Amino acid sequence: MNKKTLKREINDKVSIVNEALDRYLPGIDETPGQLHEAMRYSVFAGGKRLRPILFLAAAEAVHGRADELLPTACALELLHTYSLVHDDLPAMDNDDFRRGKLTNHKVYGEAIAVLTGDALLTLAFDLIASNVLQGNISPRIGVEVIREIAAAGGSKGMIGGQVVDIQSENKLVDKEVLNYIHEHKTGALFRASVRCGALMGGCSPQQLDCLTQYAENLGLAFQITDDILDVEGDSVKLGKTVGSDARKKKSTFPALYSMERSKKLARESVSKAVGALAQFAEEADILRYIAGYLLERES
Amino acid sequence: MNKKTLKREINDKVSIVNEALDRYLPGIDETPGQLHEAMRYSVFAGGKRLRPILFLAAAEAVHGRADELLPTACALELLHTYSLVHDDLPAMDNDDFRRGKLTNHKVYGEAIAVLTGDALLTLAFDLIASNVLQGNISPRIGVEVIREIAAAGGSKGMIGGQVVDIQSENKLVDKEVLNYIHEHKTGALFRASVRCGALMGGCSPQQLDCLTQYAENLGLAFQITDDILDVEGDSVKLGKTVGSDARKKKSTFPALYSMERSKKLARESVSKAVGALAQFAEEADILRYIAGYLLERES
Repeated sequence: MNKKTLKREINDKVSIVNEALDRYLPGIDETPGQLHEAMRYSVFAGGKRLRPILFLAAAEAVHGRADELLPTACALELLHTYSLVHDDLPAMDNDDFRRGKLTNHKVYGEAIAVLTGDALLTLAFDLIASNVLQGNISPRIGVEVIREIAAAGGSKGMIGGQVVDIQSENKLVDKEVLNYIHEHKTGALFRASVRCGALMGGCSPQQLDCLTQYAENLGLAFQITDDILDVEGDSVKLGKTVGSDARKKKSTFPALYSMERSKKLARESVSKAVGALAQFAEEADILRYIAGYLLERES
Repeated sequence: MNKKTLKREINDKVSIVNEALDRYLPGIDETPGQLHEAMRYSVFAGGKRLRPILFLAAAEAVHGRADELLPTACALELLHTYSLVHDDLPAMDNDDFRRGKLTNHKVYGEAIAVLTGDALLTLAFDLIASNVLQGNISPRIGVEVIREIAAAGGSKGMIGGQVVDIQSENKLVDKEVLNYIHEHKTGALFRASVRCGALMGGCSPQQLDCLTQYAENLGLAFQITDDILDVEGDSVKLGKTVGSDARKKKSTFPALYSMERSKKLARESVSKAVGALAQFAEEADILRYIAGYLLERES
């Protein structure tokens, strides 16, 4: 497929995910209205929907039916959003803005922000279970997916990464710690998104291996390009001020490896990610496109 | 069964649950050690293990095998503990002590306390899924249980109750709002504990109806006696100062109904709970005992 077609396909998927999120999130007319408003505020405050797209694209790469998996796709976005709402809290990163908008606690206060995160996290598991109960997914696969996503989001996954990230502030950490933070804080959920899409799409064990390799390299490339953008990016396009990592004395790839080597490392990771898809034909073109896009992204 | 035997059976169950919690919680030697220490701190800071016991007793009431359901029993305790850790935060109830011990954020700081709650909540779903993958529970029932627990813990369940509770502070609310808070903040998880125990134990739809009625009346009785203890209880046995509801101007049953009527209401609820178990023989004796115990409890 050519680039233009792929871009349109991805945009279509983003629209479908956004419409589904609107359907699945409780309405502000349902008690407690303020909490539901706050949940919607953060979910619809922007975001590229990268995790749901990866999930759906992985399902399609193994000829699964993406249209039957929307609740689980949305669950991954809710998990990501919950982590941002809690990370922004005064006790954590203390950020006033996210994607150019006030953070949840700046609008609704800290108590509601904590509960917004809790509710998004809980709703994520509700949605996956509801998806399975619709009847198109084998319950056994459904339970495996819930197990995988809980592990990826838990104390030895995403939350673990955030803890070590906080503990490493104002310290120059070594490569091992930097890798731990990235593999856990962002890598684990990327990996789970791709793997669970493949599992729910009906993959073979061998396909799962290849897609796992793709996801791990993609996650690494994402984190490196994220660090690069924080130095070289355009604050308007990013929706946040650049240079915030340096100000917070966060360990980053450019700080640890030099900018030039970081860019090389990003290209190599993308190349490995794409290489892992060798056995797939055009059904994996969206996954290839996303990997390439990381090297060009501006936000 | 006589009271002494029942009391011993419950104590045995508490020990089994505590040992299982110790096995399922990550060790403090696993990265990030501080987070795992904080999770263990709050889980082992006391607690009657009422929700796991109700879950296991409901499973046994329908002749299910409690020993095969320990991970899910523990998941319910983790959900309860996560809600306490977050409720105690400065932005919420701002409590320094819980069950006579410093609250999580007083020991580990606010950032870790938020993440401790997140990690306990996530681990709860991990444990239920892992329990199902052990092979003794039908995956379909497992997914139904996950759906039920996520709904009970979510924005229209436990979290919703906490939101309305916060919004009602320093206000004299009416009976409708008081009922909403209690049914959601504590009632929903009690109800889910009993129902999920019954479901995983292999109940009939008719048994599920009776046990649901039991659970709803039990939850109400628990909340009323909780409010009564806050006025008349012994602060040493409670592990917290009495009169805190009045100081925080929280709406309570004694404040809204008078102490005498509150006690009558508690007795009536217990009586209805026990009445809902009429079709069960001695296999439901633990459930009966727990209902009666609420009227005598001192903490």
